[in-house]
Amino acid sequence: MPDIHIHNVTVVTMDDEERVLHGAAIVVAGERIVYVGPIAEAPAAKDDATVIDGAGMVAIPGLVNTHTHLAMTLFRGAADDLPLMTWLREKIWPVEAHLTEEDVYWASLLGIAEMLRAGVTTFCDMYWHVEAVARAVRESGIRAHLSGVVIGVAPNGAELLARAIERVRAFRDEGHPRITPMFGPHAPYTVPAAMLCQVVEQASELGVSIHTHLSETEAEVEESLRQHGLAPIAYMDHVGLFTVPVTAAHCVHPQPEEISLLAERGVGVAHCPSSNMKLGSGIAPVSAYQEAGVIVGLGTDGAGSNNTLDLLREAHLAALLAKVSGDPTALPAGRALAMATRDGARALHRDDLGVLAPGTLADIALLDFTAPHLAPTEGREVSHLVYAAKSADVDTVIVHGQVLLRGRHLLALDEARIRARVQESAQRLFSGAA
Amino acid sequence: MPDIHIHNVTVVTMDDEERVLHGAAIVVAGERIVYVGPIAEAPAAKDDATVIDGAGMVAIPGLVNTHTHLAMTLFRGAADDLPLMTWLREKIWPVEAHLTEEDVYWASLLGIAEMLRAGVTTFCDMYWHVEAVARAVRESGIRAHLSGVVIGVAPNGAELLARAIERVRAFRDEGHPRITPMFGPHAPYTVPAAMLCQVVEQASELGVSIHTHLSETEAEVEESLRQHGLAPIAYMDHVGLFTVPVTAAHCVHPQPEEISLLAERGVGVAHCPSSNMKLGSGIAPVSAYQEAGVIVGLGTDGAGSNNTLDLLREAHLAALLAKVSGDPTALPAGRALAMATRDGARALHRDDLGVLAPGTLADIALLDFTAPHLAPTEGREVSHLVYAAKSADVDTVIVHGQVLLRGRHLLALDEARIRARVQESAQRLFSGAA
Repeated sequence: MPDIHIHNVTVVTMDDEERVLHGAAIVVAGERIVYVGPIAEAPAAKDDATVIDGAGMVAIPGLVNTHTHLAMTLFRGAADDLPLMTWLREKIWPVEAHLTEEDVYWASLLGIAEMLRAGVTTFCDMYWHVEAVARAVRESGIRAHLSGVVIGVAPNGAELLARAIERVRAFRDEGHPRITPMFGPHAPYTVPAAMLCQVVEQASELGVSIHTHLSETEAEVEESLRQHGLAPIAYMDHVGLFTVPVTAAHCVHPQPEEISLLAERGVGVAHCPSSNMKLGSGIAPVSAYQEAGVIVGLGTDGAGSNNTLDLLREAHLAALLAKVSGDPTALPAGRALAMATRDGARALHRDDLGVLAPGTLADIALLDFTAPHLAPTEGREVSHLVYAAKSADVDTVIVHGQVLLRGRHLLALDEARIRARVQESAQRLFSGAA
Repeated sequence: MPDIHIHNVTVVTMDDEERVLHGAAIVVAGERIVYVGPIAEAPAAKDDATVIDGAGMVAIPGLVNTHTHLAMTLFRGAADDLPLMTWLREKIWPVEAHLTEEDVYWASLLGIAEMLRAGVTTFCDMYWHVEAVARAVRESGIRAHLSGVVIGVAPNGAELLARAIERVRAFRDEGHPRITPMFGPHAPYTVPAAMLCQVVEQASELGVSIHTHLSETEAEVEESLRQHGLAPIAYMDHVGLFTVPVTAAHCVHPQPEEISLLAERGVGVAHCPSSNMKLGSGIAPVSAYQEAGVIVGLGTDGAGSNNTLDLLREAHLAALLAKVSGDPTALPAGRALAMATRDGARALHRDDLGVLAPGTLADIALLDFTAPHLAPTEGREVSHLVYAAKSADVDTVIVHGQVLLRGRHLLALDEARIRARVQESAQRLFSGAA
């Protein structure tokens, strides 16, 4: 794999000092970044190096989508403006029952095409037919944390768990450099305590982390208090879930003592503002989490309830939503951008992503900053990235040292074919639906 | 001016039945739409007609931005995450004091470039150096409702009013087909009652409407109650403002009786969700307004507090923000899209815009619906327009029968030059600032 030299670019490093370098260079060797700094001091490019002119561009770490259900691109716009349980019971579950591996494979590729175009280079997924998702990840070049879905209360709950264990083992044995397996126990209210303990035991033994939904709605909290005498986060702690690394989506309605619990246990929170707003779930106390030391990343949730996989949009929404209750100084731009990058990586329990610095994996997005909505520019890059930039400004994307998007063109994916296949799936699946 | 025939397009008419036509045609003659319907029944194209292939495209009425301060593109990203009064007193007003006509002209062109790219074809502006804004409107081809700023409590308040009257007369005499003059008394707390009465008298005499800010923050309501014994909307009614047509920005904190008052008086409300969220102003009760029969359009506010002029983003935010307090069925997609189009035009007191139908002015945006984030497509167009589409999907824009954007290229504006001039202004204006 030839080296990549990006020259004359503005680098928003997202390192601990949040340095922004102007007229800088980034050098990639193999799958890692080896240099970020002044052009004058950059190592010379070898003859076969790929040289990218970064003039007018801003480089950011590839964005990290900490919570999605990728193949739900199939459900985009199929049912909006409904209460959560009506949506799930009447619109989603009846259709999901008929999903095939092929449906999930093509719908995943569609989601990957959308994410790469939006500068998202890593996603954390929980969905059915996880092997089909993995196939799409291997072929497309994107990076992923993958889990199937374990719903213990389902008639085939035990089988779902057995399959999940088998799949995690297989992924672990495969050791694909861009795939990290996880367990996906769906939520405290769909997986009984005994099965949660089994999941924790397996996760601990296999050395993988856990992806779950937690404290998404007020109704969930009330039901948990009624059933267990504990709110969902405290309950999950009680059953031992947090003895292994966990990424928990939503966490909208913590009890005050649960906030410090999440911090103490090192649980990564995947904040999903679009989904929480659209489903009327509420406003997660992100500022309180951050003050308490909880790591909060951003997630798009599935395209059925968002309806996109656009993480810059989530950063923008997170910054606005934190302010709506009356504090315009809450969650400033730099904080929101950290959630989309460095903190997202940390919410997935890794420190090799989310920062542009020598030694980290070469996941990079370059945004074209010459559009009118990004002027005037100088010195305003971080503000613009959160409050003004759009996913369509992403011009170039590199994942694991490989250029996947260049001049807004996907180099390795046949978008027209993917769109057509997903349209076919949608027609078959929804023609029978009410 | 040659006719324009758009063929084979999906038309989201936004007419009263909100019809969506597939594989349809739109025909434009002069500045008006003369046909919307099946291709088979469309009038034949003359030899010199401009024919646009609408395959893969969705046509919508040009979007209507009911509240902005256009030249504040200069302030985009210059000061974020601050309380409103700190922001105004320390960051905005000291710089605005040094604005020149040329600064405003170029910053207005930048905003127009941004809006046309985002499918916005009409905007309602209130800003200093209004003649410079008008010059940018005339040259660019966009449509505008223009007002200067009348701040009665300013040392030169009487002069500001005299100039405003003179300017409205001049615009009226000019009779430019794309410029509608308005009076812009800034807000109830910056214009004394006696001067508000003068403005109303002049507006009535000259047959123009009024653009103002109203009930933006809780502090404004409290102060109004203390000073006048009336909340701001009731106070404005009391001084007679609503005896002429009014477009009022924000209206975030109405008293219950003020909601019906706005409906009875036919006041158009410009809802600005980004600005209200970013400045922590609160959540306007849009659903309550609509139930009471108040006409609510959408506004971006200025780029200083948004930070874009992207009306599709406002439609998306309006739909999400209405749901956040717990009702996922509030403000469904069709309603949000109506606010960005038909209701926006009605909030400006006009019925010749905001709908794709024969007889209306030919302000049209075509969105390219072939990107991955808009798949699957069929039958999901309205949902996608609000929940998934981005301004960058806008491919073609027609205003007043003239094609201004084609294949995402602005045909009449030199963007590089505009950007460079605005950058120069920003450097001069902000170099002296703290």
